[in-house]
Amino acid sequence: MSEIRKHYFLEEYCIIAAGRGKRPSDFSSSPEFQNAASCVFCAGKEDKTPRAMAVYKNGRILQDSISKLIREWQIRCIPNLYPALSPGGADTPYQSGYGFHEVIIETPQHEKKLTDFTDEEIVLLMKAYRDRVMYYWKQPQIQFVSLFKNWGKQAGASLEHTHSQLIALPLIPPSIKKELDVIHEKSKCPYCEIVKIESSNERSVYENKHFIAFTPYCSKVPFEIWILPREHVSHFGGMSERMLYSLGAAIIYVLSRIEALLAFPAYNYMFFQLLQDDAYHFNLRIQPVTSKMAGFEKNTEIFINTMPPEKAAYYLNNEISGLNVH
Amino acid sequence: MSEIRKHYFLEEYCIIAAGRGKRPSDFSSSPEFQNAASCVFCAGKEDKTPRAMAVYKNGRILQDSISKLIREWQIRCIPNLYPALSPGGADTPYQSGYGFHEVIIETPQHEKKLTDFTDEEIVLLMKAYRDRVMYYWKQPQIQFVSLFKNWGKQAGASLEHTHSQLIALPLIPPSIKKELDVIHEKSKCPYCEIVKIESSNERSVYENKHFIAFTPYCSKVPFEIWILPREHVSHFGGMSERMLYSLGAAIIYVLSRIEALLAFPAYNYMFFQLLQDDAYHFNLRIQPVTSKMAGFEKNTEIFINTMPPEKAAYYLNNEISGLNVH
Repeated sequence: MSEIRKHYFLEEYCIIAAGRGKRPSDFSSSPEFQNAASCVFCAGKEDKTPRAMAVYKNGRILQDSISKLIREWQIRCIPNLYPALSPGGADTPYQSGYGFHEVIIETPQHEKKLTDFTDEEIVLLMKAYRDRVMYYWKQPQIQFVSLFKNWGKQAGASLEHTHSQLIALPLIPPSIKKELDVIHEKSKCPYCEIVKIESSNERSVYENKHFIAFTPYCSKVPFEIWILPREHVSHFGGMSERMLYSLGAAIIYVLSRIEALLAFPAYNYMFFQLLQDDAYHFNLRIQPVTSKMAGFEKNTEIFINTMPPEKAAYYLNNEISGLNVH
Repeated sequence: MSEIRKHYFLEEYCIIAAGRGKRPSDFSSSPEFQNAASCVFCAGKEDKTPRAMAVYKNGRILQDSISKLIREWQIRCIPNLYPALSPGGADTPYQSGYGFHEVIIETPQHEKKLTDFTDEEIVLLMKAYRDRVMYYWKQPQIQFVSLFKNWGKQAGASLEHTHSQLIALPLIPPSIKKELDVIHEKSKCPYCEIVKIESSNERSVYENKHFIAFTPYCSKVPFEIWILPREHVSHFGGMSERMLYSLGAAIIYVLSRIEALLAFPAYNYMFFQLLQDDAYHFNLRIQPVTSKMAGFEKNTEIFINTMPPEKAAYYLNNEISGLNVH
């Protein structure tokens, strides 16, 4: 059973997730990835996970049942076996750790990376993202749906097989609340302003009809990239199929460039969006994991970044690989 | 040359520190520690570092000069060779990245850990902390002095030889500003309230005449520990020699217990204090590094902690080592 706890006097929260009953010795070293043979996310291992809530297969969306597990799927969405939050006992959503935690298995193939996806596969993933986000946001008492991807052990992934995660929360998280307070004070959407500032400039990395990608002026980490819709859209549900296609193309392009330059680094990406407030402007942030959050960052919440975003954009735009010339 | 940049529309900052002129390939993997023979923090290598600003030796505080480097020291404070911020060009403190960055070498001995320090050695370190914090806070335009320790590669240390770091900033960081805003709204100091709540309870870990140590109710990471003075003191400069002694004793006790339970983990500790506002209550936060900050934390600023602080305190108080029983 989890518990959502608030800081003594600040608008800060943590989730105490004691489900796994860990002992001190479990924290000594990080576990190795399982090998492909024992991976429970692979095709054929459907009976080794909780039953799927949604399975994408040949243009249809299905569900596992007690009597039948769906095989030969393209994308499979399952409850996390060790949920940070879980439904039940919703009368006291904080103390009972109410919420949902889902894993989106992006492909049945163990060795496939997101950057290997075909156009068709990436647009299907964007649709699955949209569907699952909308589904969970409509559940009782859910205030925010966090959708993110941890790729590689250094980025916090515990399994190698490519997947995303979704955690639905009974509160608006501090990150979004802080932004909303400022957005509400302004007469224009600050993200719409950012789209103007960061289009076709020295920090631009990619543009298509619907989205721009750039290294933000105040980048927290080397090679951080933001992807913003040009049009003011608040969440996945406001996107047309063409927009979803453009978003997928932007993600694939940017990740391919990061992988070429940084020799396949671990990375996180996170979707920032809000269903219940049109003032918010959807955005995606991609952060390669190349440095540690150390004492200074934990003391000040100020990040020291040794790669100026202008230089990062130059490399992303001009160098074929990070290892080829000096 | 560094630059302090503000977020597009939030009170967030980052420091762009391009000093080392890194290329993409430099971000691919984290470097190994140098071995003891090539360590520039060791006794006898004084000529391999920038000249010391303060050297603690036999009850005196000295400085290196061009003609003479101090040898046989106990603690040595040197400018960081790759500073995040540096003095000069103070007319535009943000764009010029104005500030100071110092390394406090805590002992001349390479293999010595903080938990091996004698009472005399730890109290001398606390005095050096106090002196250096007070010195930098009084420099022109300095608004905050961040004092922290990164121990172990996973905690962001780039050298093995035990040391702390101090970065003096021309702004009050977001972490402190956020706290101050709430503190000023309250009629009583919320940290004084926390001292009452967290004394002799299920989260208590250590108490002495001047300080209490406990696992905070809203612990961000497993085995996080806060050390608070019982008395309302805002910064190092307000502490008597006896208080400094008690603080050192609390740090050594708590770190010894963490090392025994978690088999010598990497850790960060950070001092939170403020010179220019008596409303702030000095505190020290110790965070062992046993988990990664992943996509969910980066999306929401909410931490998932798999070790309830009550259970962490139980282990810290009752188990001899984390590996002995199951």
